Amino acid sequence: MRAVKDILLYYCPRIDTALNEILAIPPSEELNYLYESMKYSVMAGGKRLRPILSLLSYLSLNKKEEEKYIPLLCSLELAHTYSLIHDDLPSMDNDDLRRGKATNHKVFGEGNAILAGDGLLTLAFENIVRSGWKAGLKDRCILNIIICFSEAIGPDGMVGGQSMDLASENKIINDLDVIKSIHLNKTAKFLSAASVIGGLIGDANEEQLEALRKYGEKIGLAFQIIDDILDLIGDEKTIGKPIKSDINKNKATYPSIAGLDESRKLASIEIQQAKQALTLLPGDTGDLVSLADFILERSK
Amino acid sequence: MRAVKDILLYYCPRIDTALNEILAIPPSEELNYLYESMKYSVMAGGKRLRPILSLLSYLSLNKKEEEKYIPLLCSLELAHTYSLIHDDLPSMDNDDLRRGKATNHKVFGEGNAILAGDGLLTLAFENIVRSGWKAGLKDRCILNIIICFSEAIGPDGMVGGQSMDLASENKIINDLDVIKSIHLNKTAKFLSAASVIGGLIGDANEEQLEALRKYGEKIGLAFQIIDDILDLIGDEKTIGKPIKSDINKNKATYPSIAGLDESRKLASIEIQQAKQALTLLPGDTGDLVSLADFILERSK
Repeated sequence: MRAVKDILLYYCPRIDTALNEILAIPPSEELNYLYESMKYSVMAGGKRLRPILSLLSYLSLNKKEEEKYIPLLCSLELAHTYSLIHDDLPSMDNDDLRRGKATNHKVFGEGNAILAGDGLLTLAFENIVRSGWKAGLKDRCILNIIICFSEAIGPDGMVGGQSMDLASENKIINDLDVIKSIHLNKTAKFLSAASVIGGLIGDANEEQLEALRKYGEKIGLAFQIIDDILDLIGDEKTIGKPIKSDINKNKATYPSIAGLDESRKLASIEIQQAKQALTLLPGDTGDLVSLADFILERSK
Repeated sequence: MRAVKDILLYYCPRIDTALNEILAIPPSEELNYLYESMKYSVMAGGKRLRPILSLLSYLSLNKKEEEKYIPLLCSLELAHTYSLIHDDLPSMDNDDLRRGKATNHKVFGEGNAILAGDGLLTLAFENIVRSGWKAGLKDRCILNIIICFSEAIGPDGMVGGQSMDLASENKIINDLDVIKSIHLNKTAKFLSAASVIGGLIGDANEEQLEALRKYGEKIGLAFQIIDDILDLIGDEKTIGKPIKSDINKNKATYPSIAGLDESRKLASIEIQQAKQALTLLPGDTGDLVSLADFILERSK
């Protein structure tokens, strides 16, 4: 079992190097601006949670040499960044700051920010195939990864969740199930897919895939509850963006409906269930336990 | 050789049926609005040029039973629609009308229009895999299609072209090569990919793929020159959107640099070269000849 700090210290620089390589050189000078804007947001920091979750899930199957899959797993980070760029747009959440830096559209303009997101999403798919081949994955495995990935981030997943989130603004919502459904689609399905993709790379059987799916979903739900809490009582400097944005947008959240204490309790139950799911995995799941605890305790 | 009118009459309803099936039922009621907005733009008409181009390219290899690939080729139309929705946004081309109907953001709002585009793009990739499997394509063939598709519509293709297009507004451009490079990236690479994907499905050899690539690229370049011409002198009612939008945006175009007559001539040369490329194909290329002529003569 490694501490999450050490896990991040080990993988983040390696993931950053691979991301830099993917976005290295535009094929022509006219594309410099687009590439610059994509790189700006991709390299703006972040915990690289999704690729790391995949790597740890893969390792939990008693597998080794996880590093050769880092280039492929960068696609998860490309897609995550695309979603942040689009979510921050004036017609969506209208945020000026992200990770302590000006959001993409504030620097490159709205039209270019939309294109930067579009470019990253498309690149994510291309990179899964190219890097999958380079890492020696079987064609069928690569296709299964694409199915899992696209389901999680498409209309029945992340895009759907963002659409539900948009519709929820300025509406009176008193039902935790509604919020949970938004969280599930917007965040948890993607984290769940990251975990499952680690399993697919590691040739997991159905039972193991289901365990990873459940683990990812539960930590995803907890992650989003904590996000709601941090938006209410977090430290702006630590989070890197203004707090109380949910209140300002009249958005219902876990703490606004259930209160702070109950929300913390619900997040902790999700984390407990996530850890329970790990018992079905054959390898050392210590890192995944660390990660689950980290998500509950994070302050940014 | 069929007339393009008959080709469209035959394939369009079949493609529409398949598109309707892909977008049929949202998995939950909360996603109705997102699905409605995606359907609105996908079913707003259009010539279904890209899937049809793929089908005819496939047939030119002496292949049969092309209809079973229609569901897969709907992904080209999903991606084309996503690009139209995003291009029409206020921060891009700011268009209110498309195919005679209000643009997506005019009906569903800007945030939702961005999400509808994002959803369609993601769905396009998922559908290639699912429909490819259903049609019995080999895994390697499906992956090759994804590579070809994503290259054509990503940062080094369509998204890049749109970024160059955006940067070209209000700039003095006197160089046809600059406009041609925008056209190539924004339109021609995608049409070229549609043609090559037909070849990949039909197991074309390298020489045949190159012929199809060239054919698609040339008709793509001609298509965009004609687009520039129609924007200048077309009939608003026939085109379904306001003309003179390029002038209003201070956009350099083929006719603005080379004049109308020279632009028509240049388009006609591209079409000639496109038809020449077809001589390397083993089957009946009559339909592809019709299509090339149609692109030159179109009035909408």
